[in-house]
Amino acid sequence: MNKPIGIFDSGVGGLTVAAAIKRVLPNESFVYFGDTRHSPYGDKSEDTIRGYSDRITDFLLAQDCKAIVIACNTASALAYTFLTQKYPDVPIINVVDPVVAHVGSKINNKVGIIATRATTKSGIYRKKLRKLNAKLQVVAAATPLLVGVVEEGFTNTKVSQGAIETYLGSKKFSDVTTLILGCTHFPLLQKEIETFYNGRAEVVDSPELVAHYLKYRLAQTQLLEASLMPNYSFYVSEFTDNFNRVAKMFFGEDISLEEKML
Amino acid sequence: MNKPIGIFDSGVGGLTVAAAIKRVLPNESFVYFGDTRHSPYGDKSEDTIRGYSDRITDFLLAQDCKAIVIACNTASALAYTFLTQKYPDVPIINVVDPVVAHVGSKINNKVGIIATRATTKSGIYRKKLRKLNAKLQVVAAATPLLVGVVEEGFTNTKVSQGAIETYLGSKKFSDVTTLILGCTHFPLLQKEIETFYNGRAEVVDSPELVAHYLKYRLAQTQLLEASLMPNYSFYVSEFTDNFNRVAKMFFGEDISLEEKML
Repeated sequence: MNKPIGIFDSGVGGLTVAAAIKRVLPNESFVYFGDTRHSPYGDKSEDTIRGYSDRITDFLLAQDCKAIVIACNTASALAYTFLTQKYPDVPIINVVDPVVAHVGSKINNKVGIIATRATTKSGIYRKKLRKLNAKLQVVAAATPLLVGVVEEGFTNTKVSQGAIETYLGSKKFSDVTTLILGCTHFPLLQKEIETFYNGRAEVVDSPELVAHYLKYRLAQTQLLEASLMPNYSFYVSEFTDNFNRVAKMFFGEDISLEEKML
Repeated sequence: MNKPIGIFDSGVGGLTVAAAIKRVLPNESFVYFGDTRHSPYGDKSEDTIRGYSDRITDFLLAQDCKAIVIACNTASALAYTFLTQKYPDVPIINVVDPVVAHVGSKINNKVGIIATRATTKSGIYRKKLRKLNAKLQVVAAATPLLVGVVEEGFTNTKVSQGAIETYLGSKKFSDVTTLILGCTHFPLLQKEIETFYNGRAEVVDSPELVAHYLKYRLAQTQLLEASLMPNYSFYVSEFTDNFNRVAKMFFGEDISLEEKML
């Protein structure tokens, strides 16, 4: 059947998820949509983010996508339930649930979450973790500057180090045993954050967990592809120099973009 | 007549200009519009920014504004000429020209400009400075992370210091004699940047220069106000926690917001 997987994000961050899907599911094709015209989602309202997510999902389904991956924590937090209700026949995966399933089963755990303002405000991780394991201690903080630090290529500098220390050096975060990277930009800071915790906390990012969960869902619904010639398409709602510049950093290789205003 | 001045920006940064206008023109009323729904403008295209600027100007004129201040470097760079052509009877002030007039007349000067990506790409400062003084040496760099540093309240930390050193420590910038802060967020970093240059460069920001130029233009067109009861209104295209949080930092006092989607 060779139908692609649809993946979307507010911009470039979801490419870390796309890259993991390419590694874990090397036979699958995908269509990626980065909503650069409306990026970043992190400071926008629930209604606005639902509207954008709906239009993008509609576009991806029109491209014959067999499943949708919301590769953006903010849209996962604010638009996932809406999308599953509107498109009940399509497997829709968010980036929150696989992480919650991985982390929530551990006992005696203190979990920290760092994310955008909108994701943090939604309380999505806290609610889902507590539902799974009421004994978990959960702390969360919005760390929006880390998004810019990554996009500007300021990883492994005094800037990234200072921002990580300021955000995570608080008493609230210093004794967590698990830290969830609740934004698809943050895998690029994973090693530095691990260095900061120096083995005291497990640092969990979503791309690999999401890719494995997607594999399971596709197998379950008999949608796995055996194609040896997968095809990758990348759309943005607005060409930006920035997307071109950082896409390789996030996806691991050069990509060619098409512009599609929705 | 008591007509207000219309001031707009992509978000909160233009409040530094509004604050300067309040100081320099204490009798004038103003209506401020922060386009938070579409913020930031810095990575968007020329057409998109013109469209937003046009809708906002239209709204401000419908509020009976007698003059328009584009309190955003990106919109000044990309939409000013368009707006002056579309609204030829309204005094329209941008934040670039007063700075160019101040800096361009100096001889033997090497001028550096730091700004958003869109402003930098437009080359607006370079073009206007060179037109005024063909002998000027001009260097420019996009420093988008400094916007986030200011909005996150990371001024006067290792993070701001590291970002300033990384952006301005290059050979290109180390020997400038004047540095233009080409973004309305950057006045909040002025002292740190002055410390970095340690007297070797004059650091020029726009708010005071723009307010004084506005005063001159209003006097010239007999539009100066003598009211002793000025009135200030603040609109945003979308309520965001962030705007509320940082508005005081930029404007210097609490403000009350109305939401107006355009």
